[in-house]
Amino acid sequence: MNARSTDATELFKDACAGDRAALARLLSLIERGGDDARSVGRLVYPKIGKGYVVGLTGAPGAGKSTLTSALISHVRSLKQEVSVLAIDPSSPFTGGAILGDRVRMQSHATDPGVFIRSMATRGHLGGLSLATSEAVRLLDAVGSPCTLVETVGVGQVEVEIARNADTIVVVVNPGWGDSVQANKAGLLEIADIFVINKADRPGVDQTRRDLEQMLELSDFTSTAWRPMIVTTVGTTGQGADSLWDAINQHRAHATADGSLATRREQRLRNELRAIIERRLEHRAREICTGDRWEAIQNEMLSHSRDPWSAADEMLAGIL
Amino acid sequence: MNARSTDATELFKDACAGDRAALARLLSLIERGGDDARSVGRLVYPKIGKGYVVGLTGAPGAGKSTLTSALISHVRSLKQEVSVLAIDPSSPFTGGAILGDRVRMQSHATDPGVFIRSMATRGHLGGLSLATSEAVRLLDAVGSPCTLVETVGVGQVEVEIARNADTIVVVVNPGWGDSVQANKAGLLEIADIFVINKADRPGVDQTRRDLEQMLELSDFTSTAWRPMIVTTVGTTGQGADSLWDAINQHRAHATADGSLATRREQRLRNELRAIIERRLEHRAREICTGDRWEAIQNEMLSHSRDPWSAADEMLAGIL
Repeated sequence: MNARSTDATELFKDACAGDRAALARLLSLIERGGDDARSVGRLVYPKIGKGYVVGLTGAPGAGKSTLTSALISHVRSLKQEVSVLAIDPSSPFTGGAILGDRVRMQSHATDPGVFIRSMATRGHLGGLSLATSEAVRLLDAVGSPCTLVETVGVGQVEVEIARNADTIVVVVNPGWGDSVQANKAGLLEIADIFVINKADRPGVDQTRRDLEQMLELSDFTSTAWRPMIVTTVGTTGQGADSLWDAINQHRAHATADGSLATRREQRLRNELRAIIERRLEHRAREICTGDRWEAIQNEMLSHSRDPWSAADEMLAGIL
Repeated sequence: MNARSTDATELFKDACAGDRAALARLLSLIERGGDDARSVGRLVYPKIGKGYVVGLTGAPGAGKSTLTSALISHVRSLKQEVSVLAIDPSSPFTGGAILGDRVRMQSHATDPGVFIRSMATRGHLGGLSLATSEAVRLLDAVGSPCTLVETVGVGQVEVEIARNADTIVVVVNPGWGDSVQANKAGLLEIADIFVINKADRPGVDQTRRDLEQMLELSDFTSTAWRPMIVTTVGTTGQGADSLWDAINQHRAHATADGSLATRREQRLRNELRAIIERRLEHRAREICTGDRWEAIQNEMLSHSRDPWSAADEMLAGIL
């Protein structure tokens, strides 16, 4: 065992014993990726299985962070523990808003029953999705009973990350345009629960009707889970209890009918595929350097070799 | 030489002689991807270099197709030939609008000096970008002096495709929000020419000031091309002549200062890298099938193997 994995082993032991600084360091290793992240992953994997994962997603400005904060307050009032991973595929253009929301959420930061961590992109976006899955497993392994994964925005990466949850909560606001927006990004199809947040604004009934109508177009079997619609006001905490109840109802349903187990299996299969793809991409980057790479590129640029035979030549050794 | 490449050779000969049906069939082969596409690519590559590529991008609804149609009319009034590739990363949600615009553009379809073709996603989005580059080269090789590549939407794929042009035109509309939208998607950085289309609406001066202000924040060297701002009304054709002049000014500038050659070289380098990545992805899909794949997945699902050693095992033969 080398120094690096010994280090991770010690940190993991400490984190399991409740050491938050050790947990934070392990999460940083995961975020950074590479061999260190893999060492952590190998330690964590045999210990997982008890934690539950709730994904929260929705358009920027839908009030996800405020809602998350309200949900934490409710869960804590029930004397249960909760962790939050706030995932930001680092768009420089939303920095201000996020910071404000995060600050609000940090009111829970001194509560020993709450663990909050932001994760941002380090390089490849696919890497962020893999790192999030790994971070969720780490929190599970160190004994967190429930992790809320909150994503910023509704891009492909965010949807991919939200999809990796046991219960997927999609947050919209009153107003027809917003539910359509959710539809566009494919959020409608993945939602287990819809939250109409900012429900103190006009248009709640219309939005509910829109969502109901969209759900009616879907073909749910009689035993399948039919997405619930919950209304909340994140700023006052109104409806946070109903949201938590809905999450637990979905959890019970998915546990009973086996769909939770199926979803988790599918998730692991997808992750394995993603890991293999990432390793091959990494190998491609290794290949595309050096003198031979320069020489082949120059042949291509001078038109004495086309791009396909150039690729054949570079890949000759490994495919 | 096998039957397949003989076929492509014949088609290419016919297309070079002006046979549009042969050209259309070659484009279909490119769109479909795989070995056929590569056969076409190998034939085309030695013949390229004389055509010029203009990329048109901007938010949906900015009026790109109508503007393209107006630009075609202007180019034809100068007795020059032009080809159009309309690239649609097939979002099912914009189908109606696209269809309407395409119908409008088809008024040029009977003009022998104009060639119009739509290309859509066949599977992988990265594939569409490669297929577009290949289609552009084919049009160049058969003698099209100028190809307009028009993309729908402002996603990552569209930006990637637009970036592969010799001159990049970014279309916005009057109104502050729209120029900000362009900024968000990273369009500001890649634009050689900004078009404020629908300039018969209020807010043109403000949008121009916004763009000017954003350009002022960029640090152009004294000899570098400074993006031009052109106003147009696509529906009436107003300003299409100024846009064409701006394109030719940029072309002359980029040819003179060597930036066109540099950009084309960089494009080819990126493409080679993309081809290598795609080949590796393809290999990954080949690996992730069969009995061994099932067995390793089951070991992972039963927690007797973690995802990383599962990936190691699957990749053992090729990395």
